[in-house]
Amino acid sequence: MPNVSVSADGGYLTLSEPSRSARFHAIWLRDNAWDAQTRAPGNGQRLITLSDIPRGTRIAAAAIAGSSLRVTFAPEGKSVDYDRDWLFAQSYDHPQDRQAGWTAEGVETWDASLMQSVPCGDFTEVSANPAALQRWLAGVARYGFAKLVNGPVEDGALMKVVELFGYVRETNYGRHFEVRTTVNPTNLAYTGLGLQAHTDNPYRDPVPTVQVLYCLESSAAGGENMVVDGFRAAERLHGEDPEGFGILTRYCARFEYAGEAGVRLRSRRPMIELAPDGEMIAVRFNNRSAAAITDVPFDQMEHYYAAYRRLGEIIDDPAMEVTFRLNPGECFVVDNTRVLHARKGYSGTGTRWLQGCYADKDGLLSRLAALETMEAAE
Amino acid sequence: MPNVSVSADGGYLTLSEPSRSARFHAIWLRDNAWDAQTRAPGNGQRLITLSDIPRGTRIAAAAIAGSSLRVTFAPEGKSVDYDRDWLFAQSYDHPQDRQAGWTAEGVETWDASLMQSVPCGDFTEVSANPAALQRWLAGVARYGFAKLVNGPVEDGALMKVVELFGYVRETNYGRHFEVRTTVNPTNLAYTGLGLQAHTDNPYRDPVPTVQVLYCLESSAAGGENMVVDGFRAAERLHGEDPEGFGILTRYCARFEYAGEAGVRLRSRRPMIELAPDGEMIAVRFNNRSAAAITDVPFDQMEHYYAAYRRLGEIIDDPAMEVTFRLNPGECFVVDNTRVLHARKGYSGTGTRWLQGCYADKDGLLSRLAALETMEAAE
Repeated sequence: MPNVSVSADGGYLTLSEPSRSARFHAIWLRDNAWDAQTRAPGNGQRLITLSDIPRGTRIAAAAIAGSSLRVTFAPEGKSVDYDRDWLFAQSYDHPQDRQAGWTAEGVETWDASLMQSVPCGDFTEVSANPAALQRWLAGVARYGFAKLVNGPVEDGALMKVVELFGYVRETNYGRHFEVRTTVNPTNLAYTGLGLQAHTDNPYRDPVPTVQVLYCLESSAAGGENMVVDGFRAAERLHGEDPEGFGILTRYCARFEYAGEAGVRLRSRRPMIELAPDGEMIAVRFNNRSAAAITDVPFDQMEHYYAAYRRLGEIIDDPAMEVTFRLNPGECFVVDNTRVLHARKGYSGTGTRWLQGCYADKDGLLSRLAALETMEAAE
Repeated sequence: MPNVSVSADGGYLTLSEPSRSARFHAIWLRDNAWDAQTRAPGNGQRLITLSDIPRGTRIAAAAIAGSSLRVTFAPEGKSVDYDRDWLFAQSYDHPQDRQAGWTAEGVETWDASLMQSVPCGDFTEVSANPAALQRWLAGVARYGFAKLVNGPVEDGALMKVVELFGYVRETNYGRHFEVRTTVNPTNLAYTGLGLQAHTDNPYRDPVPTVQVLYCLESSAAGGENMVVDGFRAAERLHGEDPEGFGILTRYCARFEYAGEAGVRLRSRRPMIELAPDGEMIAVRFNNRSAAAITDVPFDQMEHYYAAYRRLGEIIDDPAMEVTFRLNPGECFVVDNTRVLHARKGYSGTGTRWLQGCYADKDGLLSRLAALETMEAAE
């Protein structure tokens, strides 16, 4: 039998069911009322501000009513019904002390063993079938990247990929940028270098949260794409050396790009960024645009550099990397706040043409959440 | 006389001049070398990774050479010259313990007293004159907003404003959105409500960092625009109640918008966001899209709500607000990570037509920094 009891001063109530129990404060309940005077029935936007709720609001009465809980507030004398399942889903009456570096529900970190099951969608299918689109976007949300194959081989095809989930983030590099490489014996040594895995544009604030890289031509051998889970790399560092992990979260690095006229992009953010309650929310790692680190105290600098070096070694460890080859009409989408990417060196002659662009992850997650809501309603 | 001495183990050096002195570590110096093998001469990008620098790198020798400092590293046996002014500008050998809530150099917080000197540019002048553009953008950087007057009165004119400093951030609301109001006695009560000052779209992550609101028609009396400095509001809260300020920085709020089909935007970020070293970097405040707060422990919730209420009261205090009227061809640009905006109620009949769009602050600051660099070079 569900039961509700109100504290002596009316400051909170305790809602108990056989399998669950939680306390909710009067002010929290009143602020989260769903009646038509508090929330717009159409779009759910709150119509009042906190100052419209009387200071000293308390619970005058509370009673179970079917699947609802009815609460009457004083001094307003207002009664509001709450869905009990909704209330328990929003419960905040539990310990919230998690270890720094926790990741959000639904995030699954990975290493090279993911190579056998790289998340992948089919362009034609995800374009036509909302369930396939949902599965593909869920892969990006869970793993921080996903391939897409069987797309058109045409200039600008990457825009059709972005249209599946959001909008292009235009920058000084344009709405999209070209990555063309001609590999021949003369410059093989150079292109053979490859690039260290990195996140793009850490010198922007906010960074572009999603990147799309789309292959249009690929006749040179080698040049595979490679991705590394920055969250897993940070977790490994945390496991080996919690204090080294901590120092990379506590102090800001600096990044800068001033490689073209009229552009001087600068940012000041930690390499491993945590929410205030310790959730890992972003990794920034890019040797090319790392500027002088000036926000670490003198007596911490050697320790900082040791942790920075170790994080780079973990990122460079082949046990961390997933590689795949992009053929014409194939692309990958990467969460640029989490997953590092790189290109391997070439081992033969030929040409390679990719187009890249940036987009926003919040739009992608919004599209995914809307598809999940649709599915749940069916 | 400048002087340099190296520590016994070669781990750091001390650079002393009559008016300044600082220590720099071997690894920091080596990582920040500007020779052509370390940094690309053209665009300044670093060509090596930290793993290319030997573990245990130390200073074998250091000597003053004119305005430079020449350092020889072991075991590489590599010598690098550093500009001494550049070194002192990057010095990290000083106490770095600042009070939580400090703001970046160049940020000036304000209240209603700024009304007498609202930062403002002239569209024709800033379009033609880089020095005028620099002054106008510097106003946005310093105060978090600025007006622009004497612009064209034509559909889409706001795009010409964005082109002055960056790129549009397209969202589900489009590249721009329309704000049209017809005020007549029937709906006067409703439009007369105005809106509480807020930041836009806190349910995005990242939020749009810049907003432009451009006026094309304005025949109704009233409807002034109003801005409040969120950083100053947070500073006032800090002054009155440091623990209340702290609680709003330590726990995440949640925001959500699901007001149209196919859209379900959600974010989890604190109302007052600090960098890990306490710099105030963002304020999010929006009663309409605030979702249930579920990341505050039960025993802190009443305290959290008290601080949230007080922050809202400070934001609503007329002593904090700067108001101005936008006439056709006038707009304002606002740093949406810092400055809240609102529209006052109307007091007469007529029409009002504004167009709004989002853009990115990093591009704006990059344009400003490039103009400042040009000016310094002249």
